[in-house]
Amino acid sequence: MAIRVPGVRLGVAQAGIKKSAKDDLILIELAPGSVVAGVFTQNAFCAAPVQLARAHQAKTQGKICYWLINTGNANAGTGEAGMLAAQRSCTELAALTETDETGVMPFSTGVIGEPLPIERLCDALPVAIEDLCEDGWERAAAAILTTDTRAKLASREIKVFGKTVTLAGMAKGAGMICPNMATMLAYVTTDAHVDVLLLQTLTQRAIDASFNRITVDGDTSTNDAAVVAATGVAAVEITANNADVLADFETALTDLCLELAQGIVRDGEGATKFVEVAIDGGKTAEECDRVAYTIAHSPLVKTALFASDPNWGRLLAAIGRAGLSELDVEKVTIRINDVLIAEGGARAASYTEEAGVAAMAPTDLRVQIDLGRGAASSVVWTTDFSYDYVKINAEYRT
Amino acid sequence: MAIRVPGVRLGVAQAGIKKSAKDDLILIELAPGSVVAGVFTQNAFCAAPVQLARAHQAKTQGKICYWLINTGNANAGTGEAGMLAAQRSCTELAALTETDETGVMPFSTGVIGEPLPIERLCDALPVAIEDLCEDGWERAAAAILTTDTRAKLASREIKVFGKTVTLAGMAKGAGMICPNMATMLAYVTTDAHVDVLLLQTLTQRAIDASFNRITVDGDTSTNDAAVVAATGVAAVEITANNADVLADFETALTDLCLELAQGIVRDGEGATKFVEVAIDGGKTAEECDRVAYTIAHSPLVKTALFASDPNWGRLLAAIGRAGLSELDVEKVTIRINDVLIAEGGARAASYTEEAGVAAMAPTDLRVQIDLGRGAASSVVWTTDFSYDYVKINAEYRT
Repeated sequence: MAIRVPGVRLGVAQAGIKKSAKDDLILIELAPGSVVAGVFTQNAFCAAPVQLARAHQAKTQGKICYWLINTGNANAGTGEAGMLAAQRSCTELAALTETDETGVMPFSTGVIGEPLPIERLCDALPVAIEDLCEDGWERAAAAILTTDTRAKLASREIKVFGKTVTLAGMAKGAGMICPNMATMLAYVTTDAHVDVLLLQTLTQRAIDASFNRITVDGDTSTNDAAVVAATGVAAVEITANNADVLADFETALTDLCLELAQGIVRDGEGATKFVEVAIDGGKTAEECDRVAYTIAHSPLVKTALFASDPNWGRLLAAIGRAGLSELDVEKVTIRINDVLIAEGGARAASYTEEAGVAAMAPTDLRVQIDLGRGAASSVVWTTDFSYDYVKINAEYRT
Repeated sequence: MAIRVPGVRLGVAQAGIKKSAKDDLILIELAPGSVVAGVFTQNAFCAAPVQLARAHQAKTQGKICYWLINTGNANAGTGEAGMLAAQRSCTELAALTETDETGVMPFSTGVIGEPLPIERLCDALPVAIEDLCEDGWERAAAAILTTDTRAKLASREIKVFGKTVTLAGMAKGAGMICPNMATMLAYVTTDAHVDVLLLQTLTQRAIDASFNRITVDGDTSTNDAAVVAATGVAAVEITANNADVLADFETALTDLCLELAQGIVRDGEGATKFVEVAIDGGKTAEECDRVAYTIAHSPLVKTALFASDPNWGRLLAAIGRAGLSELDVEKVTIRINDVLIAEGGARAASYTEEAGVAAMAPTDLRVQIDLGRGAASSVVWTTDFSYDYVKINAEYRT
């Protein structure tokens, strides 16, 4: 069944920003009364559209009418001209739709450092406006892709006092925390009515548990953004006053973000494995994260995963250099897909190479480390490092 | 001319630890009166031989007679049996040479987590002892290699009051801060007489400026060690009392370590480029280091280097995510081999794609970043990421 969120319409156009004749302009219209929350890249070289999107969101206190997205050009590293181009896209769209330019949040993804062809973008705006419709999700989700190989779309429904609330979203990204050509963008909407401050809190928590827990290569894009809109069209209110409803909504939102985030990892550049790195038994969640990311970013661990090699020595070495003070290596255990591989600072007595090879064979792997020094835990999702990762990133601009 | 350091003899043997019939045992004898300084891995999963080498060095206050090195097996992640095996190698050698076992520093490099075949190692000790000679450097430097493709040997001579002081060393490693199979080991010797405390200070400084400034893949081995021995046989004393002589000696030592360290980078796993990352204009050396390592560890930067692609957008994104507070991106400049690529947060007006491509063509690249906010600087050396890096590390154990 086609995805629809009451109060949300989507349109696409070919602006000629991408070299090939593909949709490269996406417009998402949010019904009057919608509010938007968002999380943006921490990179100091934050792209012009991200700066402007954040400013407009702040200025309107989240009362946003349009998300305007172009692919094929990141409009990052483009100096003052880049900011003028981003502003121009907002004023043109506002004029065409008789709205205020501060109601437009612009987003760009593509090559860094090339001037955005703003005339072509503006010329295509009427086409995108004309194309707006409630069932435009599939085409929009296809149009925002760059090095991605497949669209990431997800939806959820919850019942609140007999009424249906819908959540739906799409994402793009094939390297997360990620490359100049594979910026992570996520657009999530709901027809529930949510106060903008509560929505920002729920959004931050959902993203912390999903998009902020995936990594392909440890690189943070200049253009990353994840935004959530609540149109209120369903006439169902989500408030802190009704804890059960709030919990249902938050679960659906987090779950949807997690599906999109894991979709990005599964579509990671050159990925042949989907890897969950789960750390238990830490003193704090922070130290569990440190171990998880050290493993998830280790090129040696990632190449071993590509080779389906149960090379626990590399896992052990990664744990050992994560910088945990007074780590008792004797208490650390390593499991892969539930096979105990190492304990007591050495290979487990019960371990056999056959069992290890069998554990590494599936596409989906769970690397589970118990640090044996506390009750905290954390989990991140990542991929392996393959020949194709090198190929995709070495050949991208050629 | 063959390398010789008075007071130092080297021998090799085939112990059968490596699967192929190659020298895999190296013995280095230091004349009575020698003192040894050293720096060891920070990895919490520190291998048994490293723990024992450090303990013996401390116990004897650096009065060491033998460095005993095996390749083919790291004796790491081997638990108590691994420690017993390391101890056994020292006691056997001490018995055969009628010395004390605390005078032996053991080192191992190779696969993690496999039991060290200690009987075969001990059986080969008499052969290595028999083989000891002053001109054994070339064969020893070849025997310590694992995934390395060539030996790293370097020597220096300085004149002190008309007398010649020699320094010579060898290193192995093809991933630094590095893989389980490409542990970094360095052995440097001199015939000068140097007090052990002064030698430790000079060694730490020399290593900080050389081996600690190279990175292939950001992984730290469980077995890394760099040791420096002064035999005193030349009857030339290096002391803090003669600043000129001390400076000459320190320069020669640092320079020699730098040659060995850069040799490791040039022989980096799958490396096709030798890359100097030089950061200037930082507030502190620490923040310059942070930017340098963020660039040197970025898989996206490294794959672009492999492609000889002047993809300054990836450099800019790496600088931006290095976590510098209040970085003014307008003041940052990026040069590659002296070609100004980016300034003012955007591509330099003078930049042309042709100039960029020409700058990236050589094997040796210098990426120079000016942060424009202070007088501190730093430099690290690294390699690109190639198909062969993935191949070497995905196929190693098979």
